[in-house]
Amino acid sequence: MEPNTVEKPSVTVLGLGAMGAALARAWLAAGYPLTVWNRTPGRAAALAPEGARVAGSAAQAVAASTLVVICLLDDTSVDEVLAGVDVAGRDLVNLTTSTPAQARARAAWARRHGARYLDGGIMAVPPMVGAPEAGGYVFYSGSRGLFERHQETLGVPAGTTYVGEDAGFAALHDVALLSAMYGMFAGTAHAFALIRREDIDPAALAPLLADWLVAMIPAVHQTADQLCSGDYTTGVVSPLAMQVAGTPTFLRTAEQQGVSPELLIPYFDLMRRRLAEGGGEEDLAGVVDLLLR
Amino acid sequence: MEPNTVEKPSVTVLGLGAMGAALARAWLAAGYPLTVWNRTPGRAAALAPEGARVAGSAAQAVAASTLVVICLLDDTSVDEVLAGVDVAGRDLVNLTTSTPAQARARAAWARRHGARYLDGGIMAVPPMVGAPEAGGYVFYSGSRGLFERHQETLGVPAGTTYVGEDAGFAALHDVALLSAMYGMFAGTAHAFALIRREDIDPAALAPLLADWLVAMIPAVHQTADQLCSGDYTTGVVSPLAMQVAGTPTFLRTAEQQGVSPELLIPYFDLMRRRLAEGGGEEDLAGVVDLLLR
Ligand SMILES: NC(=O)c1ccc[n+]([C@@H]2O[C@H](COP(=O)([O-])OP(=O)(O)OC[C@H]3O[C@@H](n4cnc5c(N)ncnc54)[C@H](OP(=O)(O)O)[C@@H]3O)[C@@H](O)[C@H]2O)c1
Ligand SMILES: NC(=O)c1ccc[n+]([C@@H]2O[C@H](COP(=O)([O-])OP(=O)(O)OC[C@H]3O[C@@H](n4cnc5c(N)ncnc54)[C@H](OP(=O)(O)O)[C@@H]3O)[C@@H](O)[C@H]2O)c1
Repeated sequence: MEPNTVEKPSVTVLGLGAMGAALARAWLAAGYPLTVWNRTPGRAAALAPEGARVAGSAAQAVAASTLVVICLLDDTSVDEVLAGVDVAGRDLVNLTTSTPAQARARAAWARRHGARYLDGGIMAVPPMVGAPEAGGYVFYSGSRGLFERHQETLGVPAGTTYVGEDAGFAALHDVALLSAMYGMFAGTAHAFALIRREDIDPAALAPLLADWLVAMIPAVHQTADQLCSGDYTTGVVSPLAMQVAGTPTFLRTAEQQGVSPELLIPYFDLMRRRLAEGGGEEDLAGVVDLLLR
Repeated sequence: MEPNTVEKPSVTVLGLGAMGAALARAWLAAGYPLTVWNRTPGRAAALAPEGARVAGSAAQAVAASTLVVICLLDDTSVDEVLAGVDVAGRDLVNLTTSTPAQARARAAWARRHGARYLDGGIMAVPPMVGAPEAGGYVFYSGSRGLFERHQETLGVPAGTTYVGEDAGFAALHDVALLSAMYGMFAGTAHAFALIRREDIDPAALAPLLADWLVAMIPAVHQTADQLCSGDYTTGVVSPLAMQVAGTPTFLRTAEQQGVSPELLIPYFDLMRRRLAEGGGEEDLAGVVDLLLR
């Protein structure tokens, strides 16, 4: 093998499930020296023909590179894999999905064991990894120095977005975006249910739905500005009172179409609560505060 | 006043609230002969200096133009305004928000009284009316002939999208899109609540949220295709089983952040129900069917 003109840092990947394998292949394809380990050995062996060095244990894999990327099922599997492994002096990048609290605890654990730590939240599915044009990226938080040192390497499988020193922030951003997505999916599920028994092609509704949602997304900027300023009433086009007055039409339509309103009710209830508290002239930002305990 | 080279058809608008007045102004600005009526006379008089003819009663307003656009508060106010008014031979375009059943009943009522009928659902707020570049439009359903005859006139205040002969379909499309929007707003409310007590600027989260939602919107096309074909398992990247396995991270994160999970729970419950029914290899389309009663 010819040496590269600029030597690429070696990378270790622990965990070769759907996501770990996609990450590993992206680094292999880009010519990074790669060491891999997986609990079920067959998944590691499968990468050997593509140039990966297969470590015999997690400890050996961790010893092989300064940069150690972890992509296991969950926080418990990280516990199990790293139990007793010497991580001192390593740059640990944990892309295993975790809660913010788990990420913070992992960062503290790494510090106690002499490792630097960066937590990640992957905003992509495996087919988007290694295909930057697909728009996938990873939230990173924790050690800024570690992020800056490895940003180029970390940018190979997907985009990189650093969101702060608090190790929990990557997970928090990840969960925030996916939670919003599930809300949107809930809304679109309700919409499709409404037309399910009518002579309306779902494929004809889909572009109308997509365009409408795209048009309504900028509302998040207004909500953000209102949450920052604390003023929920300036520039309001559709006051809460008017919107609440409209909700019976949504509920009656659901009923007429034989569709359960269970996905609409909780938000409408919060709108009504805010109205009852005197928020009739506001936009919808006030609902955010009602969610806080 | 000079006559126009091509004579524009006259239009009557019943109801000059925020929306009716915006519609009326768009036609006035485009040079259409306009007759207006409003229960509270001051709102009609305000349009006289801009060229509107103010009718003394709803009956006189209806008699003044073949094309009669109705934009009142709700279906009950339409009942009250049209009680005893002769609508025979008129082209009624009712843009008052209604349920599909109300729209169908109104269409039947119009037929009994010798009028043609088109129902509309307005996908715009008043500032978008008369500003076609703002992207607002109106769903129309009911008489196709009436729609085609008046399409140019109807296209003056906002775009026009005809969705079928069934008079209820405009309302159904309107409610479907707005329901989906409220789902999305519910999701983004949860997302903002998650960071509300952290040192994270909502205005920094907003573009991340917006980009992510835009990236996820194309899922509606896949859902539509799956609902059409009845095959919910082809081309699935994130199987339901995997997604359900991820839900505890969302719920635990909400709990850690002191955020009520009430906006997430109903959708997660449906995901779990579909998984329990054997949909683990599917996408999320199966949730739509669970909403049907
Ligand atoms: N796939 C996605 O779309 C996606 C998207 C964003 C984020 N993520 C996150 O990426 C991470 C990996 O996901 P994935 O899709 O690769 O999952 P996966 O295909 O199910 O693979 C799970 C991996 O974890 C290993 N593992 C599980 N329990 C273990 C244990 N107790 N000890 C040692 N190894 C263990 C598995 O090893 P074996 O091969 O021995 O079972 C395998 O390597 C997860 O945290 C996931 O949330 C995934
Ligand atoms: N504004 C929006 O953002 C928006 C967006 C989409 C659709 N729409 C729909 O457009 C329609 C009108 O909305 P809007 O914003 O113009 O409402 P609005 O500003 O509250 O005006 C309501 C209109 O209805 C009239 N009205 C109410 N009850 C009546 C009755 N019993 N008899 C006679 N007239 C009565 C009012 O007359 P007075 O002046 O005498 O009170 C006024 O002209 C509604 O169906 C609404 O859902 C509105």
